[in-house]
Amino acid sequence: MRTLDLLFGRPVATSDERAEQIGPAAGIPIFGLDALSSAAYGPEAALTLLIPLGIAGIHYIVPVTTAILILLVILYFSYRQTIEAYPHGGGSYTVATENLGDRAGLLAAAALMIDYILTAAVGISAGVGALISAVPSLQQHTLIICLGILAILTLVNMRGVRDTGVAFLIPTYLFLGTLLIVIVLGGFHVLLHKGHPVPVVTPPALPPVTAALSGWLLLKVFSSGCTAMTGVEAVSNGVMAFRQPTTKNAKTALTIIIAFLIILLAGIALLCRAYDIGATDPGSAGYQSVLSQLTAAVAGKGVFYWVTIGSILLVLSLSANTAFADFPRLTRAIAQRDFLPHVFILRGRRLLYSHGIFALVGFTAALLILFGGVTDRLIPLYAIGAFLAFTLSQAGMVAHWRKQGNATGRMIVNGIGAIATGITLLVVLVAKFLDGAWITAILIPALIMIMSLVRRHYDHTAKETASPEPLKIDGLQPPRVILPMDKWNRISEKGLRFALAMSPEVEVVHVECSDGDDISVCQVWDNMVLPPIRTAGLPEPRLTIIKSPYRFFVQPFVDHVLAEQKKSDDRQIAVLVPELVVKHWYENLLHNQRANLLKLFLLVKGNENVVVINIPWYLHK
Amino acid sequence: MRTLDLLFGRPVATSDERAEQIGPAAGIPIFGLDALSSAAYGPEAALTLLIPLGIAGIHYIVPVTTAILILLVILYFSYRQTIEAYPHGGGSYTVATENLGDRAGLLAAAALMIDYILTAAVGISAGVGALISAVPSLQQHTLIICLGILAILTLVNMRGVRDTGVAFLIPTYLFLGTLLIVIVLGGFHVLLHKGHPVPVVTPPALPPVTAALSGWLLLKVFSSGCTAMTGVEAVSNGVMAFRQPTTKNAKTALTIIIAFLIILLAGIALLCRAYDIGATDPGSAGYQSVLSQLTAAVAGKGVFYWVTIGSILLVLSLSANTAFADFPRLTRAIAQRDFLPHVFILRGRRLLYSHGIFALVGFTAALLILFGGVTDRLIPLYAIGAFLAFTLSQAGMVAHWRKQGNATGRMIVNGIGAIATGITLLVVLVAKFLDGAWITAILIPALIMIMSLVRRHYDHTAKETASPEPLKIDGLQPPRVILPMDKWNRISEKGLRFALAMSPEVEVVHVECSDGDDISVCQVWDNMVLPPIRTAGLPEPRLTIIKSPYRFFVQPFVDHVLAEQKKSDDRQIAVLVPELVVKHWYENLLHNQRANLLKLFLLVKGNENVVVINIPWYLHK
Repeated sequence: MRTLDLLFGRPVATSDERAEQIGPAAGIPIFGLDALSSAAYGPEAALTLLIPLGIAGIHYIVPVTTAILILLVILYFSYRQTIEAYPHGGGSYTVATENLGDRAGLLAAAALMIDYILTAAVGISAGVGALISAVPSLQQHTLIICLGILAILTLVNMRGVRDTGVAFLIPTYLFLGTLLIVIVLGGFHVLLHKGHPVPVVTPPALPPVTAALSGWLLLKVFSSGCTAMTGVEAVSNGVMAFRQPTTKNAKTALTIIIAFLIILLAGIALLCRAYDIGATDPGSAGYQSVLSQLTAAVAGKGVFYWVTIGSILLVLSLSANTAFADFPRLTRAIAQRDFLPHVFILRGRRLLYSHGIFALVGFTAALLILFGGVTDRLIPLYAIGAFLAFTLSQAGMVAHWRKQGNATGRMIVNGIGAIATGITLLVVLVAKFLDGAWITAILIPALIMIMSLVRRHYDHTAKETASPEPLKIDGLQPPRVILPMDKWNRISEKGLRFALAMSPEVEVVHVECSDGDDISVCQVWDNMVLPPIRTAGLPEPRLTIIKSPYRFFVQPFVDHVLAEQKKSDDRQIAVLVPELVVKHWYENLLHNQRANLLKLFLLVKGNENVVVINIPWYLHK
Repeated sequence: MRTLDLLFGRPVATSDERAEQIGPAAGIPIFGLDALSSAAYGPEAALTLLIPLGIAGIHYIVPVTTAILILLVILYFSYRQTIEAYPHGGGSYTVATENLGDRAGLLAAAALMIDYILTAAVGISAGVGALISAVPSLQQHTLIICLGILAILTLVNMRGVRDTGVAFLIPTYLFLGTLLIVIVLGGFHVLLHKGHPVPVVTPPALPPVTAALSGWLLLKVFSSGCTAMTGVEAVSNGVMAFRQPTTKNAKTALTIIIAFLIILLAGIALLCRAYDIGATDPGSAGYQSVLSQLTAAVAGKGVFYWVTIGSILLVLSLSANTAFADFPRLTRAIAQRDFLPHVFILRGRRLLYSHGIFALVGFTAALLILFGGVTDRLIPLYAIGAFLAFTLSQAGMVAHWRKQGNATGRMIVNGIGAIATGITLLVVLVAKFLDGAWITAILIPALIMIMSLVRRHYDHTAKETASPEPLKIDGLQPPRVILPMDKWNRISEKGLRFALAMSPEVEVVHVECSDGDDISVCQVWDNMVLPPIRTAGLPEPRLTIIKSPYRFFVQPFVDHVLAEQKKSDDRQIAVLVPELVVKHWYENLLHNQRANLLKLFLLVKGNENVVVINIPWYLHK
């Protein structure tokens, strides 16, 4: 327990659940990390697809970013309304379930689960991408570094959300601060040199042109760029974590987060164009991230460069924290509606839904290993989940306002959001289908099927076991007892005493594996067992001897029990299994494991009228 | 079961145990394989140590072999007497235990176990040595081929000793036949060319002289050569397997085996000297076995060469069969005296002591892997076990004849045997100590210690559980029953009904993990449970609610049970554990595993007054 305490903190009692509540300043790192850090991989994902166009490609980043920013503003107004309508947390799952029904809710649930897992995976892989841009020799260890960061995040998160909030405050503001300095300084140089600034460190030369511009390519660029918008919904999911006035604080936090995100995206796009900075081939040796090139071009490779890269690494890795905070909450909400195993409802030692964290870590590690920790390979899977959730949430809000009545204005705002995100979803799905979106497109229905089956199982179990009626007291009678006996010793004596005490109907069964030893059992029976029972005037137990020509014990015995059960109809049969309990595990090697085998067989082959009573005999006690 | 049947044969009933009994002709392959096949590695082991002496070394093989043959004749006469005295099987273990006591018996047991394991390992590795002499390209796969042969042997032996006897008849006689032809043909050439025959295929040139002759070296050569004598005791172990007249048939088999062995050893030594054939460096690329060189020199590399090498490979590999036949019989005999776990007594599906075979295979595989399947590295470990067993057996026979009285002649014969093998044992131990005999010298006391501890455990268990007295019938009273209840459903109803039927004293325990749900439990108790019990006039059960601030269930519940047990002194407490049994294993993921955890905790932390009653509830039945 001590090691656990050191790693994860002491267990927290249920009564210690204070309002672990926060203001807007603390809310920005916790709920904004995912959204803000998207600026570090969204533009890069778009620029990577523009590589084949050479220097001309870089010019298209500005119109594509403009389209993305328009979508972002629409989302902002939509989510402000969601926060107002759901002060106790309006995640897409809740909103879709409550307003559009269970089916839409399941769709949102599946989309969100995939989205959160990818948030964690992409956050970590992009952070490591920043690191290997600065220290290229680490490139061959990409995957190991990714998994190491995942392990650290798991430990930090197992201590609880309050602790993590504090741990993430400084890196987030450092990240925001340094990137804003790069953008302001870069903008100043651009103005100074009339649009043609001289880079301090010249970015890598752009590759030769290998493809022509096409509408299809621009769609793909837009789709990749849309990953910059993921994470925007985090505040609306976590409204209840803010302190009073909850709604107002949450809305303030959302406004600040979106405003900063717009500045970052617009600034990066404009500076890339002015400095002629494009993406480099991801996963290959010469890789350098766009933000690394940009910072070096604007400010050189001095101390400031290293601080910036460090904060990008930290923030990207920690952006996975949004997933760590939200995924377990989501799986809990789904499990409460019986669509996921109930372990996701259980709170662990530190008031966290530990099993949700385990599941998230498992899936994230699988994704990282499968895709080698390279962000660019994960991107095509990413945006679909997010935009499907956006669309369902907005559509749900439309239904919400309609039910409320008297809210046409709000209905229109959310309607625009639903239409815009719905169209984007289709664009992303079509443009990225062959690149990997098909994986998500298969996973979502698969998850929905699993969740439906889980629900069916729970419904069935509840129906089978439900008892709205009072205890039935009729026909109570002690069970028939069957006791296996190998030879007469204190263990069998203890078993027999227990049997006689609980029932007047006892059968002792001896399985005879070789010829001859039945004689001694019969002798024992007549000399040791029957006389005292007769003297006491108790009902006489019956002795049955079963021949076992193949020297098996368990199977003939279980067959006998089941046959007896059949004969005695609904009567309960209790099988007494004496078991030797040794002090050290290795002593078990010296005793056959018949007792365990017998218990297992009786459980698997038995029925509800067969009950197993385990009589332990402790050695050396 | 079908796959098992195909691999190992159908199960054999105890009543089918016919006399699987054999005559001398069939006895030679079964009990003589080990002894005869020793001719294939004993002389080679001696010659390998003579490599540094160059051509001069080969001349010393004749006097060393003469010394070995004298020892062999002494052993022959000793073992004839053992066969007569022990017609039911006189293995060293039996003879030493019966005549010299348990301690000497344990020493013999340890020595024999190690000897049998090495018989299997050396047989296989020497067989593979013959193969790679003929096909040098296989040399790099030595270990894999060794393990493959071990696997085949295991399968063959799991079918029973009768089957294996037939399978080994042809290779043994082929081996004897071809080697005798080589010796006769070679002898003829030697006579024809007056001691200087011309080899058909010239053997590899002998390496230059790198060392001078010393008495110490000759002792080591003798010690290695003594491995040619291992396996001689096999007939005396298995006397009872021969058909009537048992003793006479066994003695005939022993005579034939020893006679052939003498011819083989003498012939090989004389021909090696005449043809100037020495050993080659084992484990290195140019390795060729002595018998391969000899056959090629005498008969060329034609069809006859390949038949000879094939029969050597087969017979050496199958010589391990002696170990497969004897090791399980030995461990059974030891286990019957409680010095090894009783599983070694159990007969498996095919009337074999399967666990003995498993143990042998495991240890043999370990040795082969540890020493890379190279015979020369295994040889130093080998002879010690065999000669220790020889010595103890002969010494036991001396004590046997002394007890019988009137058998001075026989006592002298076995006395000579004991002294000769005892001296050889000391020579081998000293000469080979640093080369690997120290491993055996450590293993033997270790095994003795383990066997003593096993015996102590069984003695202790028997003493603790023994009951020579009749059943005590006083103070029988039904146990107190404790039943955990999460909520009111048909599962808890079933448990409560069972509890009420078996005892008037029932306590229902509810562990409250979060605030508030105790209200519903109390309501259920007052509305659903108590009224029918009161109406029926049954003793009222008690409801206990335990608060669990850390949301653990199992620990607080078990603590409560143990506290109650302490209060009620010697009274039995039965804990009812309702358990949901699902149809498919994966459905278990949907239900928490509290029942299993609870059973485990109660068994580990409990005492003999705590009994667990498992009430299964079957879903979908």
